[in-house]
Amino acid sequence: MEKITIDRGDAFLCPMPTVLVGSVVEGKANFMAVGWVSRVNFKPPLFAVALGPHHTNKGIDENKEFSINIPDVSLIEKTDYCGLVSGSKTDKSEIFNVFYGNLGKAPLIEECPVCMSCSVYRTVKLPFNTLYIGESKEVFTEAKYMTNNILDIKKVNPFTLTMPDNHYWSVGGILGKAWNIGKKIKG
Amino acid sequence: MEKITIDRGDAFLCPMPTVLVGSVVEGKANFMAVGWVSRVNFKPPLFAVALGPHHTNKGIDENKEFSINIPDVSLIEKTDYCGLVSGSKTDKSEIFNVFYGNLGKAPLIEECPVCMSCSVYRTVKLPFNTLYIGESKEVFTEAKYMTNNILDIKKVNPFTLTMPDNHYWSVGGILGKAWNIGKKIKG
Repeated sequence: MEKITIDRGDAFLCPMPTVLVGSVVEGKANFMAVGWVSRVNFKPPLFAVALGPHHTNKGIDENKEFSINIPDVSLIEKTDYCGLVSGSKTDKSEIFNVFYGNLGKAPLIEECPVCMSCSVYRTVKLPFNTLYIGESKEVFTEAKYMTNNILDIKKVNPFTLTMPDNHYWSVGGILGKAWNIGKKIKG
Repeated sequence: MEKITIDRGDAFLCPMPTVLVGSVVEGKANFMAVGWVSRVNFKPPLFAVALGPHHTNKGIDENKEFSINIPDVSLIEKTDYCGLVSGSKTDKSEIFNVFYGNLGKAPLIEECPVCMSCSVYRTVKLPFNTLYIGESKEVFTEAKYMTNNILDIKKVNPFTLTMPDNHYWSVGGILGKAWNIGKKIKG
């Protein structure tokens, strides 16, 4: 083992989930691609998204609502497009079929297997990014994405992101059961 | 399209990265498996880990330092084991070969392809979890995990987690270049 250090700015988690974060800005649904996102609390279910200074933020700051949509691989080009162009210059409200749940300012994407409407729980300002912590109020899916009453990742078919090489990846095969296969190890 | 709603507590991102978070508790290195983790700021590089009330937290609260270690698939059983047993009852300091960088209370795992020593930047108390936001101060890897001077996920060979089905998954194949393939779409 010969450890080396690398530039700390070039270190990311791998692989990262890829979601589309939505908000309503100036009356229009707007979406951006986000890989810096995580569930952060058990009850109530809270999610954190770390956004740079983007057009999307305006809608979240104003309405205190946003959405998290998990795209499947068929949406990879549209998702990437949403990360390439800013809503300040390009109207992204027509890229997807948009619907709403009970939160009128959290635009949801019909084509995405999983959509969550969130209300802002807390906003944490960081030096560059803003961490929006949202409580998921409603989660939408379709029966075809479920197995035994829970979401089935093989049916959802999401994709993942790595940086700084900047690639999208599929999810591979099952390696084992979590909170289980470690039982083989004796303490 | 027939949308249905599911229990919002059962919604997670997919797939999630899987890391080992380390701290020093009562003089001993301790590690836990964590899937609720994300990079959250560009400069300086900040990472957030959302921990329930765990033994690991004691060390982070006391020392204001922790580590994030990315295990490869060969470490899947040991990683899962660290998620199964609490450091309050089981000494986990001997599971891995531990080394330290400049931060003396951020225990790093020699066997992990990527290790980061972090100092606590901010602590956000949430209803159940605590969100520890840490600044990565040093990032360690080995030359064999690099291609063209950046980390190569195929060489790192990490695994991912899904909930609530609770499975670990490998990373599949490349689907495309991020910030690129969306160029095919016209605004």
